[in-house]
Amino acid sequence: MTFKLELSDNAIFKTVFDSIASIIDEVTIIFDSEGMRLNALDRSHITFVTLELEPEVFDEYICDEPEKVAVDCTKFNQILKKCKTNDIIQLTIDEGNFIIVFEGDATRRFKIRVIDTEYEAQVPPNINHNVNIKVPSNMMQDALNDMLIFSDKLKLLIDENYLKIISDGEFGDVDIKYLHGENILEVAQSIYSIEKLKDIFKASKFSKECNVGLGNDMPVMITFELPTRDGVLRYLLAPRLEERG
Amino acid sequence: MTFKLELSDNAIFKTVFDSIASIIDEVTIIFDSEGMRLNALDRSHITFVTLELEPEVFDEYICDEPEKVAVDCTKFNQILKKCKTNDIIQLTIDEGNFIIVFEGDATRRFKIRVIDTEYEAQVPPNINHNVNIKVPSNMMQDALNDMLIFSDKLKLLIDENYLKIISDGEFGDVDIKYLHGENILEVAQSIYSIEKLKDIFKASKFSKECNVGLGNDMPVMITFELPTRDGVLRYLLAPRLEERG
Amino acid sequence: MTFKLELSDNAIFKTVFDSIASIIDEVTIIFDSEGMRLNALDRSHITFVTLELEPEVFDEYICDEPEKVAVDCTKFNQILKKCKTNDIIQLTIDEGNFIIVFEGDATRRFKIRVIDTEYEAQVPPNINHNVNIKVPSNMMQDALNDMLIFSDKLKLLIDENYLKIISDGEFGDVDIKYLHGENILEVAQSIYSIEKLKDIFKASKFSKECNVGLGNDMPVMITFELPTRDGVLRYLLAPRLEERG
Repeated sequence: MTFKLELSDNAIFKTVFDSIASIIDEVTIIFDSEGMRLNALDRSHITFVTLELEPEVFDEYICDEPEKVAVDCTKFNQILKKCKTNDIIQLTIDEGNFIIVFEGDATRRFKIRVIDTEYEAQVPPNINHNVNIKVPSNMMQDALNDMLIFSDKLKLLIDENYLKIISDGEFGDVDIKYLHGENILEVAQSIYSIEKLKDIFKASKFSKECNVGLGNDMPVMITFELPTRDGVLRYLLAPRLEERG
Repeated sequence: MTFKLELSDNAIFKTVFDSIASIIDEVTIIFDSEGMRLNALDRSHITFVTLELEPEVFDEYICDEPEKVAVDCTKFNQILKKCKTNDIIQLTIDEGNFIIVFEGDATRRFKIRVIDTEYEAQVPPNINHNVNIKVPSNMMQDALNDMLIFSDKLKLLIDENYLKIISDGEFGDVDIKYLHGENILEVAQSIYSIEKLKDIFKASKFSKECNVGLGNDMPVMITFELPTRDGVLRYLLAPRLEERG
Repeated sequence: MTFKLELSDNAIFKTVFDSIASIIDEVTIIFDSEGMRLNALDRSHITFVTLELEPEVFDEYICDEPEKVAVDCTKFNQILKKCKTNDIIQLTIDEGNFIIVFEGDATRRFKIRVIDTEYEAQVPPNINHNVNIKVPSNMMQDALNDMLIFSDKLKLLIDENYLKIISDGEFGDVDIKYLHGENILEVAQSIYSIEKLKDIFKASKFSKECNVGLGNDMPVMITFELPTRDGVLRYLLAPRLEERG
């Protein structure tokens, strides 16, 4: 056997693909000696996702030759939803099938056909933000749930002291102020779709904190890193420029 | 600052407005030195609601001049639903906006536009019931959930020993008997809409017990009082007279 | 009073009729000195249900003369859903009504009209399976929840070592392997509707284990028995023969 992965912390996979499946239809996952990774851009070119999991994230990681597996994200997510708290996930590849096994009281084996795809490696856009802060992931997720009452878009604003999340509407508005406690010397702000941000924060269990990199009328970069530093999930979300005219 | 209210027991507000929003579209809330209150009649003139919260209910109550605030009940309820268990609610008024702040890990500030309204004070109907009993609020709420299987209306009946809640339908009927243990000398009974009563008992967390005042073919009066006696929520619900012909 | 039943373990009734109501519209229940029982076949003649509860299952069982009660399963199930954990169920019959009482904080009495029916006793088909194993009921229920991703039918297969549950579809497949640990000398397999099996396993709380009797292209027999041996719930489900061509 030249390809076999085993993962006991199944929450990582579940949270990542719950988010990705809400953003992207099909994804090509690459496995090689450096780990598992994917780069994907959604159909409307608004959200870019990058996932990198080093071999150390897995309980077992055997991958003698690089493998590319293209899967339907919805199907893969439907399968991962069936994984129970204490199940161990095993991944293998066999004759055009991606095989996901959950080991628990019974052995539950799911196969999905690998999609034929002319994979062109997506290159993540290279963006540097002057303004970067760390915030609790669940605070962000909760804040987004507050936002949809009055509008479908929001402004993210970071100043010296606060991260502000602001949503204005015809009948009212909401603003959330979070004291970030970091050394920020300038103000950055942009407007984003609330729904797209909610899709991103479906992955909030990936790590307790996330990094928010913000500019003016620029994409926001949201980065979740495993506490062990051997896994990164990063999103780049385009702003809704038309809203600032 | 001449107007500022703070309330740490947010469950009071949440339960009251969850009920009110299911009954009434817009409500005018009055704040003055005696407290916060509202009187409202639903569009179809079936349910009358009265709420009175004395300043002592609040952790802080500053109101130098009387204020009238007319709000969309659905919007206000949507906002209150976002309030978490340990959040402190702050209410202020600012340039035509009613401002609701939840203080928790972050500061979450919601503004709703105050509605222009020619407020005519609703006067609660003056009804005296000979038959009055106290019953557990959640027993009533549970009983109402049992009732919808066979019909959309029910009979409330109080006799010497029991509160009876009866619903008859083509395919079956339900009756619930609760031993009230009070000194009742006559029988009173009327028929009401099950759905309207369910809307009222959405407020059942306001107090563990409620008072039910009943007459014959008359409105029922349901009164929740805070254990501290400084807050009252009262409903008057018209009977479905046509059903007794 | 010549007919009165009392049951404190209300979960038995709730789980049985939750399943039956999803399979069968109307059912005739027979009560006599040997206990309560029913035999019913669904409208499309795919699932046969047998329930037998001996008098010992009940806390009180008074039945001087045999009684037949035909009820609408949906209505009966709606009523049983209102039964709370600690409620005691009482069953009586009165002038064409089947009366279900829940004794808890209040006394809640539900009447359903007995349906007029020319009851012809259904005789359960007599089928003997060579292959019979015991499996945990909740393992089966969980497995069925995994199955619907790719198809609406599945194969049950029992061999020397394993129960296998297999579902194939255009985009993928699932198979679940459970080590049964019994002495099986031959292989049996048939194909069934996933939905019909899910309806059956709504009754999985009836007993922790169930017996699965399987043949080749034959109905499967699924038997739940109370640990006290005085109650049996049995299902016979026809195979989907057309799928094996």
